[in-house]
Amino acid sequence: MLKPYEKKAQFYETDQMGVVHHSNYIRWFEEARVDFMEQIGYPYCDASNAGIDFAVLEVNCQYKSMVRFEELVKINVFITSLSQTRMSIAYEVADSVTGTLRAKGETGHCFYNRRTKRPVSLKRELPELYKVLEASVLK
Amino acid sequence: MLKPYEKKAQFYETDQMGVVHHSNYIRWFEEARVDFMEQIGYPYCDASNAGIDFAVLEVNCQYKSMVRFEELVKINVFITSLSQTRMSIAYEVADSVTGTLRAKGETGHCFYNRRTKRPVSLKRELPELYKVLEASVLK
Amino acid sequence: MLKPYEKKAQFYETDQMGVVHHSNYIRWFEEARVDFMEQIGYPYCDASNAGIDFAVLEVNCQYKSMVRFEELVKINVFITSLSQTRMSIAYEVADSVTGTLRAKGETGHCFYNRRTKRPVSLKRELPELYKVLEASVLK
Amino acid sequence: MLKPYEKKAQFYETDQMGVVHHSNYIRWFEEARVDFMEQIGYPYCDASNAGIDFAVLEVNCQYKSMVRFEELVKINVFITSLSQTRMSIAYEVADSVTGTLRAKGETGHCFYNRRTKRPVSLKRELPELYKVLEASVLK
Repeated sequence: MLKPYEKKAQFYETDQMGVVHHSNYIRWFEEARVDFMEQIGYPYCDASNAGIDFAVLEVNCQYKSMVRFEELVKINVFITSLSQTRMSIAYEVADSVTGTLRAKGETGHCFYNRRTKRPVSLKRELPELYKVLEASVLK
Repeated sequence: MLKPYEKKAQFYETDQMGVVHHSNYIRWFEEARVDFMEQIGYPYCDASNAGIDFAVLEVNCQYKSMVRFEELVKINVFITSLSQTRMSIAYEVADSVTGTLRAKGETGHCFYNRRTKRPVSLKRELPELYKVLEASVLK
Repeated sequence: MLKPYEKKAQFYETDQMGVVHHSNYIRWFEEARVDFMEQIGYPYCDASNAGIDFAVLEVNCQYKSMVRFEELVKINVFITSLSQTRMSIAYEVADSVTGTLRAKGETGHCFYNRRTKRPVSLKRELPELYKVLEASVLK
Repeated sequence: MLKPYEKKAQFYETDQMGVVHHSNYIRWFEEARVDFMEQIGYPYCDASNAGIDFAVLEVNCQYKSMVRFEELVKINVFITSLSQTRMSIAYEVADSVTGTLRAKGETGHCFYNRRTKRPVSLKRELPELYKVLEASVLK
């Protein structure tokens, strides 16, 4: 069972409205995604070192309520779809103390060979990782 | 006739894939939105000084091709919908030299009174700005 | 005895040289400073809620070796000087595994009343916090 | 005669104190440095494409007065010292309208071969660039 990623809102992440700037949630999604990969036993940089990146094709985020400096949030990560060449991941950001939903979002990725600069089949290139991701797809 | 916002990709905006990190496009959308407001004669900080912020409710971005350090992009901004309380804005990011599409996206906003911390009717609070925005809605 | 602040280098913090961009260390100093305040029992936002900010007057950083994505660093924080109106804080960033020094730096602050927009004597405004900081000054 | 680099403070660069976060000045220094290189006819990415990076060894910044959202600043750049392997650059950030000094700072660099991951003599590796920089050293 995976644990949600926990994150503390930093001062430099706030803007003059006194809350975390909306662009930072996209970075938090990435932090949570990286943590997810570590938890399933295949750290991001292992894929990266093997020359495979998870290029981002699209991203969306719905903001439900604001996060303030020094507040803790929990981010749950779900693989919502996986094919040989693509993956979609969903995120739920909630206040760690109250559980209030802060934001929801999704990122779409293709598997990308850094050297050839081409999309690739992850199933062929890193079958082991593909298998682990497959086992994590939300049912 | 409004001019597209022009932006040069900065070194600190790149990541280890050698291209601009995807989160920065969300910031570029904001830069372009701020520039748009200036061009229509109602700078963002005028609204902000009047106590009205454009809280972001949602954001999405589709990445079409990568932007590299020192490349110039042009960002076109379109108001796609406007009500008394909400506004949607679309963005197209293209290479300044070749015109190649780099990304498309949209942001959704509500008008927000910073003091009362409540959504408000822009038509009532800042009728002048509302009128200017209305005239800019994409037909 | 205070614990060093632990931080994992994020993907979005890297640049196209394949290492953490130098500007992010300044943000890491802030993260470590905020954590330090929590450890001494006076969270940053308590001061901030009382209307007192720690305005940054100067910052410097010497980069000793590079930090890569997903590496862990430990940041030690030391108050090197404290007066009624000012404080200097030093930082040492080292690899969590090997202990190799990554960077050293210092920030200089004045205590600042957000409402009056003036520097203030912390000893007068928040004597309790001043006492706690005084007890933490490096001897 | 070189022109100062002009920059508009962005919304996402502000923090909850209502001013530009201090870490962003380090990024503005980089923006100004990159612009400086373009003005002297040797864009950063030409050096980068030749395999040479300007690794940052140290940075410092003194903050004199705050910059607010949508304010314009002018950044003057001066090469203060140059050797075959190192370079120091100074920066002055001033309000574009009033000329009020906002910040001063300096960055120290070594010339770095990305492939061999070693410091190199710029005079040997890119003699043309070395010559151009030499002609720009502040007297």
